[in-house]
Amino acid sequence: MGEQPASSPFLAACRRQPVPRTPVWFMRQAGRYMPEYRAARAQQSILEICHRPKLVAQISLQPIERLGVDAAIVFADILLPFEPLGLGLSYAAEGGPKIWRPIRRAADVEKLAPVDPAIDLGYVLEGVRQTRLALDERFPGTPLIGFAGSPFTLASYAIEGGTSRTFTATKQFMYTHPEAWHDLMQSLATLAGRFLTLQARAGADALQLFDSWVGCLGPDDYREFVLPYSRHAITEASTAGVPVIHFGTGTASLLEAMAEAGGDVIGVDWRIPLDQAWARVGDRAIQGNLDPAVLLAPKEEIVRRVREVLRRAGGRPGHIFNLGHGIMPGTPVENVKLVVDLVRGAA
Amino acid sequence: MGEQPASSPFLAACRRQPVPRTPVWFMRQAGRYMPEYRAARAQQSILEICHRPKLVAQISLQPIERLGVDAAIVFADILLPFEPLGLGLSYAAEGGPKIWRPIRRAADVEKLAPVDPAIDLGYVLEGVRQTRLALDERFPGTPLIGFAGSPFTLASYAIEGGTSRTFTATKQFMYTHPEAWHDLMQSLATLAGRFLTLQARAGADALQLFDSWVGCLGPDDYREFVLPYSRHAITEASTAGVPVIHFGTGTASLLEAMAEAGGDVIGVDWRIPLDQAWARVGDRAIQGNLDPAVLLAPKEEIVRRVREVLRRAGGRPGHIFNLGHGIMPGTPVENVKLVVDLVRGAA
Repeated sequence: MGEQPASSPFLAACRRQPVPRTPVWFMRQAGRYMPEYRAARAQQSILEICHRPKLVAQISLQPIERLGVDAAIVFADILLPFEPLGLGLSYAAEGGPKIWRPIRRAADVEKLAPVDPAIDLGYVLEGVRQTRLALDERFPGTPLIGFAGSPFTLASYAIEGGTSRTFTATKQFMYTHPEAWHDLMQSLATLAGRFLTLQARAGADALQLFDSWVGCLGPDDYREFVLPYSRHAITEASTAGVPVIHFGTGTASLLEAMAEAGGDVIGVDWRIPLDQAWARVGDRAIQGNLDPAVLLAPKEEIVRRVREVLRRAGGRPGHIFNLGHGIMPGTPVENVKLVVDLVRGAA
Repeated sequence: MGEQPASSPFLAACRRQPVPRTPVWFMRQAGRYMPEYRAARAQQSILEICHRPKLVAQISLQPIERLGVDAAIVFADILLPFEPLGLGLSYAAEGGPKIWRPIRRAADVEKLAPVDPAIDLGYVLEGVRQTRLALDERFPGTPLIGFAGSPFTLASYAIEGGTSRTFTATKQFMYTHPEAWHDLMQSLATLAGRFLTLQARAGADALQLFDSWVGCLGPDDYREFVLPYSRHAITEASTAGVPVIHFGTGTASLLEAMAEAGGDVIGVDWRIPLDQAWARVGDRAIQGNLDPAVLLAPKEEIVRRVREVLRRAGGRPGHIFNLGHGIMPGTPVENVKLVVDLVRGAA
């Protein structure tokens, strides 16, 4: 780990320690809505950027410069492990990822290449190192978040071959080939856990596990097919001694089970009021939960809704302000800045 | 209304009266998974089928013939009102609907053509009549379900121009042009309410309001932007004297509010265990909630999961077995039949 920014309100909130003001950062805070990022993207693909640690550091710092958020998150993608796994990964100019050799049959799971994140994802770890160095130089005390995709969300992309609305192929695989499913999830849990630990060693001050699509499941399926593997990844990541954020969307019926799987902080989306979510996850910090669509609304509506999230958090220690999911392309930068200022009490 | 099939277990369950066995039907029970339907579809588009009342009757009866389900639902589409509204509607051979002149600005709402469902959707009503007649002839006593899209779900298609994962345009419109939103929702509520009432007069024995995409909202937005209009449509539909089913997906944090909006029966998806959902909606019947993806699983898994839904329903009066959403294309017909047999206690 780099210089531990012990006085960071973000890290204090992760530990549910009192903070002078609610910390705020945004999922996808470095991304298409940001002109500096679009300039970099005009020259190269997402994957090329991810493979260039110095550029990663530069992009990861943009939201600190422009918005003054309380944490940086390393610019990367949850699907990067798919390259060394042999699944094949590319991104269209517009639209989501494409996985070229998706998992279709049980036997495909055995064909996945063994991945050592220390080597095969070494460029991401170098990106973490470079970002931590750049932060130490320009924004000392600003914590850096590392992240990985959860076993379920990774498995869903690997099986669907891309994004999905219904996750039918994923569920069909899970129900039809439970042994192969459990093997796949175990591999991905080991990978995610180790990858997160290595990111902490490379300088990440907190870690987030993204289970973005887990909300397509009910609680029984979650407990049987997902929970043990999310727990494995989080338990492993927690050995690094930094806080772990466990994030999902559409999780209104999964919150207790997600909290059981682990995480110092539980990330929730806008579908459930923050106070209700917090009551259900119990003794954890909570991260969320403004709808990213609100950032496309008129200013007075943004003000009203940011205040509503803060009101529901009630000033209790352990709230990290964030969106319920990533910033949308097309979001005006000044609206994102407005949220930062509002959370800071400056607007 | 046609001959009232008073002894129908489906209608009795809607009224929470004791039934000798749990009634079962499926959303999209006449559709692409069914060879008879695919034969009809090979010759004409979905919209052409919907415009041919005798063919509608024939297709609506296919699942009664093949599966022996406890209710027929008239073959139609929730977006049919978009044709007379002037929004422009077509369906690609594969994939979802396309709305050619979506609502982009507040002024677009005023441009919508006035629609009288008695005239402009008369062909759907004639389809209901023909289906009721065909049922009376071949399956007397089998109830017929009419349906309409909810104001929110219709508005979301009208604004997005098709399907969406995030409903960003819908929310942006709602937050940015609240007056135009409320006008649009009022128009759609009036239309849906009247359309449902007319379907009951044409012979439908029950009515379902489909709020398929409402789960993208949190409860505060639901109450402010949706509830009054769903309530309007349901209240109006209820004047017809037949049971109304109020259905949505991803509604784990909306159930109380949806029940407040109305409906004799609340339809829920698999994301929430049936008993928990039922406890939350209170004194209503409940419809659901097997994951449609389960119909693509091995038989023993189907058996286990159908029994689990029935176990959670606990044999209490007022459970209508259904999926949590429509049958997926590619679903084996014999798996759907297996569910019917299992619910009947015959398998």
